[in-house]
Amino acid sequence: MTIDRAAIEAASQRLAPHAFLRRTPLWRVPGAALGIACAELWFKLEHLQAGGSFKARGMLNRLLAQPIPASGVVVASGGNAGIATAVAARALGVRCEVFVPSVSPDAKRARLRALGADVVVGGAAYADALAACLERQRETGALLTHAYDQPEVVAGAGTLAREIEEQGGGLPDSLLVSVGGGGLMGGVAAWCEGRAQVVALEPGLAPTLYRAREAGRPVDVEVGGVAADSLGARRVGDIAWVIAQRHVRQALLLPDDAIREAQQWLWRELRLAVEPAAALGMAALRTGAYRPRADERVGIVLCGANMDPGALA
Amino acid sequence: MTIDRAAIEAASQRLAPHAFLRRTPLWRVPGAALGIACAELWFKLEHLQAGGSFKARGMLNRLLAQPIPASGVVVASGGNAGIATAVAARALGVRCEVFVPSVSPDAKRARLRALGADVVVGGAAYADALAACLERQRETGALLTHAYDQPEVVAGAGTLAREIEEQGGGLPDSLLVSVGGGGLMGGVAAWCEGRAQVVALEPGLAPTLYRAREAGRPVDVEVGGVAADSLGARRVGDIAWVIAQRHVRQALLLPDDAIREAQQWLWRELRLAVEPAAALGMAALRTGAYRPRADERVGIVLCGANMDPGALA
Repeated sequence: MTIDRAAIEAASQRLAPHAFLRRTPLWRVPGAALGIACAELWFKLEHLQAGGSFKARGMLNRLLAQPIPASGVVVASGGNAGIATAVAARALGVRCEVFVPSVSPDAKRARLRALGADVVVGGAAYADALAACLERQRETGALLTHAYDQPEVVAGAGTLAREIEEQGGGLPDSLLVSVGGGGLMGGVAAWCEGRAQVVALEPGLAPTLYRAREAGRPVDVEVGGVAADSLGARRVGDIAWVIAQRHVRQALLLPDDAIREAQQWLWRELRLAVEPAAALGMAALRTGAYRPRADERVGIVLCGANMDPGALA
Repeated sequence: MTIDRAAIEAASQRLAPHAFLRRTPLWRVPGAALGIACAELWFKLEHLQAGGSFKARGMLNRLLAQPIPASGVVVASGGNAGIATAVAARALGVRCEVFVPSVSPDAKRARLRALGADVVVGGAAYADALAACLERQRETGALLTHAYDQPEVVAGAGTLAREIEEQGGGLPDSLLVSVGGGGLMGGVAAWCEGRAQVVALEPGLAPTLYRAREAGRPVDVEVGGVAADSLGARRVGDIAWVIAQRHVRQALLLPDDAIREAQQWLWRELRLAVEPAAALGMAALRTGAYRPRADERVGIVLCGANMDPGALA
């Protein structure tokens, strides 16, 4: 089970008539203007996407590609995947149930309800919420969306790279992408097919791809740290893993303090308010963990902005 | 004393080699996707400009157009004009003194110092800081920048409209612009020359242009309210006034609660973190104070983001 450019092209055609899904800006800035020794930075402002993260692309693609029963859609997520599913379901006028663990914050539940979703507390931990969600799916036959490991979800994420290529009149030389379960990386790498170098970035405290590469296969890892609420998948998805083996050569780990510093820098210097998960690219450049060539055009995907803005200094 | 398209074209050529000044994104979104009954919204994301507001354009243009003595530049401002002058001076490696009143918050002074400016507390109120600044200018011969009423400053602001036209392959049908002293409006209207309808927007609590239109000439007004720190000029500039009489037909007032609501909406729905002054365009659309035609392409200048992000819900 994998996806390729044809699947992403099909996703792009499927999504095109749905205006609520946004064509987010691509912002090209000379590297020197920002103190980075490279030709250009290409910021993809995907945190301005509907639902505040790239995930609306994949979720809407899943909902459009599959028949939706009267029982609607179900998802287990207290974070961006839940919000994106609720946003897509609302746009299509279908029922949406989101299963969250009891540890999920009230503010996130309120946001899901405001988007029209039914929020169900499905146990103490995420695993419990997932179990309750799968149980409900079996009972009602509702369409299940998965945060990253479904072909339509990965293909939907890949439309972001297709959009960058269209907006930039070509791909940048490299594309820095954050990895949790790997849906975004998988989609982007499948679209690029090596035409741009995809660099996978993970928090040191949530190293799903890094450990999979060490082990030679996806393995469960402990996850935590500053970006855990968006990049806290416990294991890289099978679809993303297959794509990464073919098309991703570099996987880098970044410490939490560098991620937090880059998030603050993006606000202070650029007035871009993004969540920690979206700051890994800038963290890699500012710490030197990733060193571009002097003539390189470096793409950075700002993948989400679902956080408390009060955390920005 | 006025400015025209030739002055703006000259400013644009003068600014072009200076990469620290940013070509900010123009983001086109279908109106229907955002619940606004118009063809398209064109958001100019000028809050991503160096220094966090459009004012860096005008200040850099002023500094490039005039000889700068060894004593450097001086400005009286605790807000965006001071920050923009400091940013431009730092980029050119010249000395910068910023005069602020003692009521200015510590955080703003710290930011000015971080930008390399010498901060001088020049009395209790803004008028005192201005008097101290003018006194210093006479003593040292330093170059004075004014927040809005100098030809180079207005022409620099006008480069923003030129950039919109270039990015959009033409101007939108209308352009919604916030007015304090009128520098931005003046520059934009001078560039458009009626080719796009410029709609001037002011807080009801800071109605400099509105009152000038009533009186038939610029008059002093009381200013206050939620946007006072960026739109709190007491009188519309003479340069802006001359341009507005020729090229601006509509001036609308907006209540503070609508401005605040639009600021929150921009964050909640679009993840755009902007200051109250930048929310007037969206407030005019959401309240119906400005009603576009169904086929209209409405431009909105998001002019700044220098605020406490904790104010966003």
